[in-house]
Amino acid sequence: MYEANVKLNLASDYMRGAHVNIIRRMAETNMMETAGYGLDPVCESAKERIRKACGCPGARVEFLVGGTQTNAVMTDAFLRSYEGVIAAETGHISVHEAGAIESDGHKVLALPHDLGKISPDAVHCYIEDYYNDGNHDHMVRPGMVYISHPTEYGTLYSLEELKAFRKVCDEYRIPLYVDGARLAYALACPENDVTLADLAKYCDAFYIGGTKCGTLLGEAVVVPDPDRLPHLFTIIKQHGALLAKGRLLGIQFDELFKNDLYMRIGEPAITAANRIREVLRDKGYELYFESPTNQIFCIMENRKLDKFSEKVEYSFWEKYDNDHTVIRLATDWATEPEKADRLIEIL
Amino acid sequence: MYEANVKLNLASDYMRGAHVNIIRRMAETNMMETAGYGLDPVCESAKERIRKACGCPGARVEFLVGGTQTNAVMTDAFLRSYEGVIAAETGHISVHEAGAIESDGHKVLALPHDLGKISPDAVHCYIEDYYNDGNHDHMVRPGMVYISHPTEYGTLYSLEELKAFRKVCDEYRIPLYVDGARLAYALACPENDVTLADLAKYCDAFYIGGTKCGTLLGEAVVVPDPDRLPHLFTIIKQHGALLAKGRLLGIQFDELFKNDLYMRIGEPAITAANRIREVLRDKGYELYFESPTNQIFCIMENRKLDKFSEKVEYSFWEKYDNDHTVIRLATDWATEPEKADRLIEIL
Amino acid sequence: MYEANVKLNLASDYMRGAHVNIIRRMAETNMMETAGYGLDPVCESAKERIRKACGCPGARVEFLVGGTQTNAVMTDAFLRSYEGVIAAETGHISVHEAGAIESDGHKVLALPHDLGKISPDAVHCYIEDYYNDGNHDHMVRPGMVYISHPTEYGTLYSLEELKAFRKVCDEYRIPLYVDGARLAYALACPENDVTLADLAKYCDAFYIGGTKCGTLLGEAVVVPDPDRLPHLFTIIKQHGALLAKGRLLGIQFDELFKNDLYMRIGEPAITAANRIREVLRDKGYELYFESPTNQIFCIMENRKLDKFSEKVEYSFWEKYDNDHTVIRLATDWATEPEKADRLIEIL
Amino acid sequence: MYEANVKLNLASDYMRGAHVNIIRRMAETNMMETAGYGLDPVCESAKERIRKACGCPGARVEFLVGGTQTNAVMTDAFLRSYEGVIAAETGHISVHEAGAIESDGHKVLALPHDLGKISPDAVHCYIEDYYNDGNHDHMVRPGMVYISHPTEYGTLYSLEELKAFRKVCDEYRIPLYVDGARLAYALACPENDVTLADLAKYCDAFYIGGTKCGTLLGEAVVVPDPDRLPHLFTIIKQHGALLAKGRLLGIQFDELFKNDLYMRIGEPAITAANRIREVLRDKGYELYFESPTNQIFCIMENRKLDKFSEKVEYSFWEKYDNDHTVIRLATDWATEPEKADRLIEIL
Repeated sequence: MYEANVKLNLASDYMRGAHVNIIRRMAETNMMETAGYGLDPVCESAKERIRKACGCPGARVEFLVGGTQTNAVMTDAFLRSYEGVIAAETGHISVHEAGAIESDGHKVLALPHDLGKISPDAVHCYIEDYYNDGNHDHMVRPGMVYISHPTEYGTLYSLEELKAFRKVCDEYRIPLYVDGARLAYALACPENDVTLADLAKYCDAFYIGGTKCGTLLGEAVVVPDPDRLPHLFTIIKQHGALLAKGRLLGIQFDELFKNDLYMRIGEPAITAANRIREVLRDKGYELYFESPTNQIFCIMENRKLDKFSEKVEYSFWEKYDNDHTVIRLATDWATEPEKADRLIEIL
Repeated sequence: MYEANVKLNLASDYMRGAHVNIIRRMAETNMMETAGYGLDPVCESAKERIRKACGCPGARVEFLVGGTQTNAVMTDAFLRSYEGVIAAETGHISVHEAGAIESDGHKVLALPHDLGKISPDAVHCYIEDYYNDGNHDHMVRPGMVYISHPTEYGTLYSLEELKAFRKVCDEYRIPLYVDGARLAYALACPENDVTLADLAKYCDAFYIGGTKCGTLLGEAVVVPDPDRLPHLFTIIKQHGALLAKGRLLGIQFDELFKNDLYMRIGEPAITAANRIREVLRDKGYELYFESPTNQIFCIMENRKLDKFSEKVEYSFWEKYDNDHTVIRLATDWATEPEKADRLIEIL
Repeated sequence: MYEANVKLNLASDYMRGAHVNIIRRMAETNMMETAGYGLDPVCESAKERIRKACGCPGARVEFLVGGTQTNAVMTDAFLRSYEGVIAAETGHISVHEAGAIESDGHKVLALPHDLGKISPDAVHCYIEDYYNDGNHDHMVRPGMVYISHPTEYGTLYSLEELKAFRKVCDEYRIPLYVDGARLAYALACPENDVTLADLAKYCDAFYIGGTKCGTLLGEAVVVPDPDRLPHLFTIIKQHGALLAKGRLLGIQFDELFKNDLYMRIGEPAITAANRIREVLRDKGYELYFESPTNQIFCIMENRKLDKFSEKVEYSFWEKYDNDHTVIRLATDWATEPEKADRLIEIL
Repeated sequence: MYEANVKLNLASDYMRGAHVNIIRRMAETNMMETAGYGLDPVCESAKERIRKACGCPGARVEFLVGGTQTNAVMTDAFLRSYEGVIAAETGHISVHEAGAIESDGHKVLALPHDLGKISPDAVHCYIEDYYNDGNHDHMVRPGMVYISHPTEYGTLYSLEELKAFRKVCDEYRIPLYVDGARLAYALACPENDVTLADLAKYCDAFYIGGTKCGTLLGEAVVVPDPDRLPHLFTIIKQHGALLAKGRLLGIQFDELFKNDLYMRIGEPAITAANRIREVLRDKGYELYFESPTNQIFCIMENRKLDKFSEKVEYSFWEKYDNDHTVIRLATDWATEPEKADRLIEIL
C-alpha cells in the first residue's frame, strides 16, 4: 500500500476512503432493497447505537453528508431570521464555508479567539454588551453559540468550559451547538475530558464527525431534546442535505459505533501526531503552538521549506515572518506508524 | 440475493446500492491518498470521460451529491436575486424540494403541465405576457427555464422540443437547464432522441443523474461554456454541496462512463418496465397514462389495492376517484427480469 | 383645483397627497424635536387611538412605510425558514411584489381564486392534502394564511368567512394575516360587515392601509397579542422598514384616527365608484364583475378604448378577447363628485 | 419655537421635520394627481437637478425611503450570491442595520477602522490576501467596497483617498459604493474636498442623504453608469423600497437641489458643531477625537454626566473607563445658533 517513491502525504485528514469495516459492509449489503431518505433499518440501528453511546435514549439523530452543510442546517434550524450565531473569528463557519451561514440570512458574530477557542466569559460579555447597548434592537440578536471540539487549531475545550457555556446559554436562553468534525480525535486524546454523554448533556445539538474520522462521507447530528426542532427533516431537505440512499450513511455510522470503534478510531492519528511533534522538537523545529490532537503546526524556515515540499505534502497555514512560514501537518485514523519514521528520515 | 418471502419491491429507483463496478473500484482504491474537494486524478478522469461522452471538450463538469442540491446550486448560480425560474407546476423544484429554490430567494414560476412537460410555446407566451404587462417591473423576472428529462411523469422531450426551448431562451437571453436525475432511463429508451451531445449543444447546463442511475450518490453537472459561471466552485461550497472526499464521486462517474456503461445501464429498467406495462394491460388494468421510461402509473381499484399492498411495495401517486387510486411502480438499473415474472404471479 | 382641460384621472388610488388635516399637522409640528424610530409621543398617541378603534388595548401597533414592505416583514416575522404562506394566486404577494416573500426565503403557496378571494374550505383542503401526502416533509410547510380585505379585485370577505379562516388556522395552529391596504374602502362600504374589532379578534396580525387611504405613506400593523412577535422591532429594522423620523407616520395615523376619520374617509370613493358603476351600466357597458369597493372593472370595446383613453386615465386590467379589454377605474378618499359627472359626459 | 424649560436636544440629526421649502411645496401640490412609483414629473425634475449637480447627465437617479434600505438594495444589486461587501467594522452596515445585508445572503467583510475610516491600502491587502489564500474559493468573495462619507465617526475621506479606492476597485473589477447619509455635512465643511461630481466620477453608486439633511425621509441613489444595474427598479420593489406616492420624494429632492440648497443646508450644523467643540475645549473637556462635521464626541466624567443629562439630550457613544463616558452631541441643518449659547450656560 505504501510506496517509498511517492511523497509523504500529511496534507489533510480526508485523503483516504473509509474504515475497512465500512467498505466490507457496503459491499455485502449493496443489493439490499431499502426505503430511501434514511428511513431504513440500517439507519435506525446506527441511530440507536449513537443514542446509547451518548447515554441519551430520547435523542434525535440525523445523518447529513458534510460539515459545512450540517453547520448551515443546524444554524438555520435554531435561529430566527433576525438572529446571528456567535463563533470564534477562526471558526469554520466564520471563514471557510463560503458564507453558507449568511446565505441563509444569518450573521456570524465573530469573537476574537485564543488558539481557536472562545471563552464562556467572552460570550457572556458579548451578550451583556448587546443587551446594554441602547440600540441593541437595531443590531443582530445573538441567537446561538457555535464552538468546535476540537477547534480549527486542534485545541480542546474542557468539561468545565463546556459547562460554563451551558450556563451562559441558559442565562440567555439560546442554544449551544458543537461542531465535532474531528470529534474522534478529541475522544482519542488523553487530554480530553469531554465525553459523548457530556455533549448530549450540555449541548442543544452537536455533530459527530464522520468524513474526517473514518467514513467516506457523513456527519451524525445529535439533538438531545427532539422537541426543540420538530421539523428538522424538512429543514434538511430544504438545504439539499437529505441523501436519497440514506442507508449509505447508516451503514457507516453503524460500523463506527459497533464495539465502540469510534472511541478508538482516532488513536493512530494521535499516536502519530505526538510522535511527529516529538520528532520536530528533537530536530530543533519550533511548534507554532501546542495542540494535543491530530494537527501539528510548525514554524519552518522558508529556505528549508522548498526542499521539504519536494518530499512531503503539507498545508500552508500562515506566513510567520519574511523568512518563516507556519505549516500544518495532519494525521488521521489511517495514518501508519511508518509515516512518522519516514518524516524523521526526511528531516 | 432474491428472496421469495419478501415483498416485491417496486417502490422507487433508489432502493439499492451501486453498480458492482463502482463497489469494486471503491474497495480497491480505498487507501489511496488524494487531494480533497474533487481536485484528484480520479475526478479528472471522470470529468474527461463525461466531456467526451458529451462531445464537448471544453465543458466544465462538477460532481454534486444529490438532485435537490444540484438544482438549488445551479438555479442560484444562474439567477440574479430578482429573477425566478420557469418550471412545470409538477417539476421537482416546484413541489418536492421543500422550498430549496425559494430559500435561496428565487420564485419558481410554475406553468401548467401536460404529463409533466411544459411546451416551448407556453414558455414563450409566459415571457411575452411578462414583458407586455405594464407592471412587469413589479414582478419576478423570468430568468431561467428548468425542465427535467425524463420528467416527473416519466415522459420525454423530443430533440425538436429541446431545440425550440433553446430558441425561446436565446430570444430572451436566459439559460436553459435540464434536470437529468433519471437521464439514464431516457438514454436507454428507444423513444428518446435526445443525446448527451444534444444536451451539451442546446443547454446552458444539465446534470447527469447518478443516484437513481447506478451510483450510491452523486450527480454530474455539465456546463458546456464554463465562462458562464466562473465562480461555480464557491457557489457549490456555499450551498454545502462540496464533498470533502470528492474522489468518491469521481470513482462512480469514472466507472459509469467507462465503455459507455451509462448509455446502457438503464436498459434493464426499461425492459422490466415495458414488460410490467404489458402485463398490466393484459390483465385488464388501466395505465393512468403512457410513459416510456422506468416509471409505471396504473389505476387500481381500492378494494384490490389492500391485497396488492401485502405483496408489493409501490408508491401512492394520487387519488383517482372514490374507488380507485393511481399507484406508481418503479424499476431501476438493477431490476431483475424475475421481478416482472413475480408481478404476473401476484396479479 | 380641478381643470377641465386635463384628462380625467381614474388610474389609481395613490395619485394624490394626504388628507388636509395631515398636511396641516405636519406643517404645525415641523420644528418639534422628538426621538426617532417611532419612539415619540405622537406615535404613541396614534397607537393608542388605533388600539381603541380596534377594541384591543393590549395590541402592539407598528407603523411601516408601504404595503409590500409590510407584507414581507410580517410574513418573515411569522414564518420559520421552512414555511410558506397560503395566498390567492392573485394576491398582491403572489404577483406584484417582485418576489419579496421569496427573497426572504418563503414560498407563496398560491391557491386558485374566485374574484380575488380564497375560501376557508379551500385552505382547509390544501393543508389537509399537505398532511395526507406521504412526502409532505419534502414539501414547504403551510405556515400562515394571507388574505386581503378588500381583495385585489375589490371584493370583500364576510365576518363569517373571517371566523371560518380563524377556525382553520386554529386547527393547524398557524397565523392568519390580513392585508388591509385598502381597508378604509371596506369600512366605508355598506356591504362590509367586518369591523376593526373583528380583525383584532380573529387575526394574528393585520395592517390598516394608509398610503391608499389618505396618508402620504404609511401602514399601521396591528398585532393583537404582542407576545407572538417579541422581536418585531428588529425584524422591521432588518427589512429596512424602520423610518428614522417615525413621527411622520405617527402624525398621519393620529389624524386618521381622530374623531373616527378613518371610518369615513373612504366614503367619497364608494359614492363615486357606485355612481360610476351605475353610469356604466346605464350606458350599456358591461362590468367585468361586481365589486362593492373603490375599484370598477369594465369591459370595453377596443375600438372605443382609443378615444376613451384620450380623455381618461385608467389602468389596463387584462385582455378580454380579441376585440375587448378589461379596464380598471379607481376612485379614492379625495375623489370629487364631479369626476363621475365628467365621466358621464365623456361616455 | 424654542423653549427654555425644555432640555437642550443634541441627541441626533433626525429629530425635526423638513426644510420649510419642502413643507410649503408639499402643501401646495398636495391635491395634484400624478402617476405613482416615482414616474411623475416632479421626480423627473428632481432627478434632472441631481444629474446636473453631479455633472453626470447620463446618471440614473432613484429615490428610496431610508438609509438601511438603500444600503441593502444597492449591496444586493451589485453583489452575486457568493459575494460579500468590504466595510469598516464600524460601518453602519456592519453593526446597526440588524443584519440587513446578511438577510439578503451577503457577508459583511469587516476591516479594522481608524476613526470610522478604512484605507485603500487595507482594502487592497485584504483582497490580495484573499486571492493568495490557497482556499480562497472556500471563502466569501470580496465583491464590493462600502465606505461612508462622512463616516459614522464624522470623519471625511479626501479626494486622494477616493481616487485610491477607485484604483483598487478597478484592479479587482469590483464596485465602489459610498453611503452619504450625512453627505450635506461633508459638503458644508471646509475640510472636505470631495464634490458631488467627484463621487459621480469615482463611484459606481452613492447616495445623497435626505433624512438627516433636511427632508422628512428619502435618500437619492445615483448610479453614474445606468447599464451597470439594468433591473434596479425591480430590485427596489423586491426590497419593499418602492414608495407608491413617489412624488413625495421627488418634491423633497427637487427643493433640496433648487438653487444649490443642498450645498449649503449643512452649514448651520457645522457652525454650531464647531462652536460647541470650541466651547467644550475652552471649558476643559476632552474631545474623544477630532472630527470636522456635525457630530461631537466628548469624554465626560460620569459624576458630571448625571447633572448634564438633566439639561441636555445626548447619545451614549461608549464607555471610556470606569469614571468616564464618551458621549455624542449632534447638530443638524436646523440647529439654531442659540443652542451653542445655551450649552455654554449649562457647562
